[in-house]
Amino acid sequence: MLPKQVRIVEVGPRDGLQNEKSPFSVEHKINLINLLSQSGLSYIEGGSFVSPKWVPQMANSAQVFTHIDRVEGVTYSALTPNTQGFEDALDSGVDEVAIFGSASERFSQKNINCSVDESLDRFAPVIELAKRYELPVRGYVSCVMGCPYEGDIPPENVAHIARRLHDMGCYEISLGDTIGVGTPTQTKHMLDAVGKQVPMANIGIHFHDTYGQALANIYAALDYGIASIDSAIAGLGGCPYANGASGNVATEDLLYMLNGMAIDTGVNMDLLLKASAFVSEITQRPVESKVANALLNG
Amino acid sequence: MLPKQVRIVEVGPRDGLQNEKSPFSVEHKINLINLLSQSGLSYIEGGSFVSPKWVPQMANSAQVFTHIDRVEGVTYSALTPNTQGFEDALDSGVDEVAIFGSASERFSQKNINCSVDESLDRFAPVIELAKRYELPVRGYVSCVMGCPYEGDIPPENVAHIARRLHDMGCYEISLGDTIGVGTPTQTKHMLDAVGKQVPMANIGIHFHDTYGQALANIYAALDYGIASIDSAIAGLGGCPYANGASGNVATEDLLYMLNGMAIDTGVNMDLLLKASAFVSEITQRPVESKVANALLNG
Repeated sequence: MLPKQVRIVEVGPRDGLQNEKSPFSVEHKINLINLLSQSGLSYIEGGSFVSPKWVPQMANSAQVFTHIDRVEGVTYSALTPNTQGFEDALDSGVDEVAIFGSASERFSQKNINCSVDESLDRFAPVIELAKRYELPVRGYVSCVMGCPYEGDIPPENVAHIARRLHDMGCYEISLGDTIGVGTPTQTKHMLDAVGKQVPMANIGIHFHDTYGQALANIYAALDYGIASIDSAIAGLGGCPYANGASGNVATEDLLYMLNGMAIDTGVNMDLLLKASAFVSEITQRPVESKVANALLNG
Repeated sequence: MLPKQVRIVEVGPRDGLQNEKSPFSVEHKINLINLLSQSGLSYIEGGSFVSPKWVPQMANSAQVFTHIDRVEGVTYSALTPNTQGFEDALDSGVDEVAIFGSASERFSQKNINCSVDESLDRFAPVIELAKRYELPVRGYVSCVMGCPYEGDIPPENVAHIARRLHDMGCYEISLGDTIGVGTPTQTKHMLDAVGKQVPMANIGIHFHDTYGQALANIYAALDYGIASIDSAIAGLGGCPYANGASGNVATEDLLYMLNGMAIDTGVNMDLLLKASAFVSEITQRPVESKVANALLNG
């Protein structure tokens, strides 16, 4: 049963730029977010409030959030892994925050140096603070269809952590194929398992296009009624744990598919392509979006 | 109902190279086809027998077919638009031939300077000859989800020409999204219409990835039981009628998806990637396959 509407969660300015080598200045980021919000996107993850020691690309998130032209109706969110980050995000005027866990124990250990359960315990105070300030919390789960260290991930592990984040108070859980290895059949198996623990209305998907499978997997997920889909303008990102250059599924390619399926997003392709062209200008290379390359060079 | 097995129809040496500017010599083509047949592919379209005035890239098809190392069990086919081409193909030892029509009147007029019905009439003598020599004939339909001149193409037009090719004796009709504009919903509408005229067992699909939609569309088609899918090694091709650089869906990306879905093809990914690497070497650029780029550069 396909959804009639989909909310596109634009993660380019955070998940995308976090993994890009090209230097986006504060001004570039502000310009990019403004172009994105002008396109009709209703949700933009604009940055993260983490130690600049760990993620130097996100060090200027406070400046970014306080200088963008806020468009009414657009949710601006940030990743906030701890209470310090949450407070900084709050001061910067974010509308929502996000926390994250992994479906893979070894990924959690390597990435944030603690077990999955410990990582969730650490987020409890963030969620408490968010409740006090009435900020919605979105939860990410990484490695839902494979892990660079463990390989295959049992769907039940994904369901378990999705359920925990849901129980902790996350209004939506975004399931991430961090290394882009999944195919439609795995997508279905994974969602079958998750659906037994969390209502599909509370599930989003976040697929990387490392092996070109993202849109096929998204199409498989749409059939489950999934109506919240993460993507990144110009396919920004890549993943330091995955081979090759490809990052998040490109927002342009996702929008093209949803438009063709008569699924409403509120996003205007022509305006979105202005953001694609801007990314191409800053990175000095063609974008990782077939739609943008076809339409901009046509 | 997903098929258990899929026949991948490798069209890189024909549809791919026909639209490539990079000069592949006769030796390059022979090497490429040999690498492809060693990978386990069971069907390779190796060239076409047309006037070199119209398609100079295919002028050396006879040399190619007579010098490849033929692997038992592999079908080597060629496009033969007229009886002269058929006879040349026969002399070169091809196992099958292919003819083509368009679902778009204006595309037919612009491309081969006659109406769709006239184009089919012209193929009648080719089919007669093929019957006499007991060579199977495959039929292509172009522009099944859109035309560069007409725009949208009614699914009924596709069904009409597919039916005619079927009635004329084509054992399989390959439905081509020549400019890569379709999405999964259009794919389903188109196949719904075609299914009323031709059994799905006699239908193949041929999708270009111009807008990144090919794998999602193929996944939609698999659900109809489609078990014959065209693709091109390294995503070779592009289309002179479509914007941007993207060509046929890459065989590597298709194979990755089918492998992940436990659909048998008989193709070995490691061996296939040798052909990808060869294409990259000749063209001196990264291939148009995310899978190949991820696995070869990993």
